Amino acid sequence: MSNYAVSLADVRRAAERIAGKAHRTPVATCATLDRLAGRQLFFKCEHLQKVGAFKFRGACNAVDKLSEEEAARGVVTHSSGNHAQALALAAKLRGIAAHIVMPSTASPVKKRAVADYGGRIVECAPTLAAREEVTAKVQAETGALLIPPYNHPDIIAGQGTVALELLEQFPGLDAIVAPVGGGGLVAGICIAAKGINPRVRIFAAEPLGADDAARSKAAGELLPQTGPKTIADGLLTSLGELTWPLVRDHVEDVITVTEDEIIQAMRLAWERAKLLIEPSSAVAVAATLAPRFRGLIDLRRVGVVISGGNVNLDKLPWQ
Amino acid sequence: MSNYAVSLADVRRAAERIAGKAHRTPVATCATLDRLAGRQLFFKCEHLQKVGAFKFRGACNAVDKLSEEEAARGVVTHSSGNHAQALALAAKLRGIAAHIVMPSTASPVKKRAVADYGGRIVECAPTLAAREEVTAKVQAETGALLIPPYNHPDIIAGQGTVALELLEQFPGLDAIVAPVGGGGLVAGICIAAKGINPRVRIFAAEPLGADDAARSKAAGELLPQTGPKTIADGLLTSLGELTWPLVRDHVEDVITVTEDEIIQAMRLAWERAKLLIEPSSAVAVAATLAPRFRGLIDLRRVGVVISGGNVNLDKLPWQ
Repeated sequence: MSNYAVSLADVRRAAERIAGKAHRTPVATCATLDRLAGRQLFFKCEHLQKVGAFKFRGACNAVDKLSEEEAARGVVTHSSGNHAQALALAAKLRGIAAHIVMPSTASPVKKRAVADYGGRIVECAPTLAAREEVTAKVQAETGALLIPPYNHPDIIAGQGTVALELLEQFPGLDAIVAPVGGGGLVAGICIAAKGINPRVRIFAAEPLGADDAARSKAAGELLPQTGPKTIADGLLTSLGELTWPLVRDHVEDVITVTEDEIIQAMRLAWERAKLLIEPSSAVAVAATLAPRFRGLIDLRRVGVVISGGNVNLDKLPWQ
Repeated sequence: MSNYAVSLADVRRAAERIAGKAHRTPVATCATLDRLAGRQLFFKCEHLQKVGAFKFRGACNAVDKLSEEEAARGVVTHSSGNHAQALALAAKLRGIAAHIVMPSTASPVKKRAVADYGGRIVECAPTLAAREEVTAKVQAETGALLIPPYNHPDIIAGQGTVALELLEQFPGLDAIVAPVGGGGLVAGICIAAKGINPRVRIFAAEPLGADDAARSKAAGELLPQTGPKTIADGLLTSLGELTWPLVRDHVEDVITVTEDEIIQAMRLAWERAKLLIEPSSAVAVAATLAPRFRGLIDLRRVGVVISGGNVNLDKLPWQ
């Protein structure tokens, strides 16, 4: 586990850093889903994490690792998703400014959530060029440090604490399945889980409509996301240069699932396991129910990372 | 704590009996709800219990306490709610028959859930007279023992294990709030919590549209439910003869809430705490947000029992 952006020691230090700030989330089980999956599933409930997503771990680690001098300058990111809320809260807890660049088209619910956590919202046009331009402008004006959503060692180390905790709670797991978007979560899990026990198998779960990780694995090289389209809005991004090597070397397989499978798995998780999960998390649940995964042998006990629970409750995908 | 149907020793024996069968459910917290409530709330997640409700505790205790000879005769109940599923599963785990008398108007989802847990559904006309008649007929034909949903010592003792666990998980609670329908849960909590620590204050939460407990407390005598009407479909029943004395003597206050308050609290719990709770549980959350409860002093840390998570996902109350 060398030659990567992050080490197991980094993850352990992140765990110490965020202890008492991030929740130690519970693990839930569901007999019905076990039956459907053909094995025992252990759901790591990061939707019960602060801000409703694992993203708080990475953001909290990155913010708390800043020196006093760095912290005084504040932090900035561009995101309309869970990382935005996570960074806003992490900054608030440290008592520093967080500038969140959000597209003008972001939903009022998401803007309100960021504002509730004390983030300063800076609107931009809904294009990547505009986001980067406005972010650079905020950095120039305020001196704030950019904390990206996944391609950053401190973010990866923070997300890795999910696996550290899960393997403390259930040391006998044969595998861990987690959704992959930018890869911060999966990369952190690889570092932590393989570092603790190299026999733990790691699987990434990805929407077929945003399958850069699956294509990159197949090609053996980092391929970009092209025109992603999926209900799993947390997984639209491409793998990064820091996360890809870990996915390449330590993820056994990337299981892709269809939109129908995602929606069905989300409903099953809500209805039978009472887990209020967002579509991006349902991708991991769907992967455990997919024939390709069900056909694997020597997997009795599987951890499944429920990455978040931020859902538009006015319009559910099955309605 | 004498002269009641159940003692703390009964609750402790119930806890031993159901250990390894019922889940030890986690406790969740939510900074937003704490802010709105003006104090710290600790949500005991019985929606993550087997069958998605605390009801499994009582049913499991009652079924497992049967002698071999009694058990061989099977069990019967009339219910269209969580107790039906709970009894079906408890009987299945013991390997005995469960006859569940359900009104012909019960939703297909509820019937399917009971059937999934191995219960034998016996349909009846949707009136109390028909339910009792059909139940008596099943008893006569099969010799099965009637396990009622709340007015039974073994049920009350089983439900009391919720408080036993919660006070082990958070010994410093000043109070516990739980929804009241038939009163099995609240009665069990009174026995357990007051038995462990007489200073723990117990509050019942009730829909204004089904307020027999509030009226009974005010009158000092058991008054029946009359024409209840509420979205909290688990709380339509009247207190029983075994549960009322505990509510009378040990519940400090019954906090009533309106339908609007229930729906708002349910949405808050879903949106901010990511807890997939049913309307009956939202009654307890709503009570903690009600001015009458907020005005109480010397309550810093309050346990809130999330009683269940069985919801019709095709039609949410705010839609």
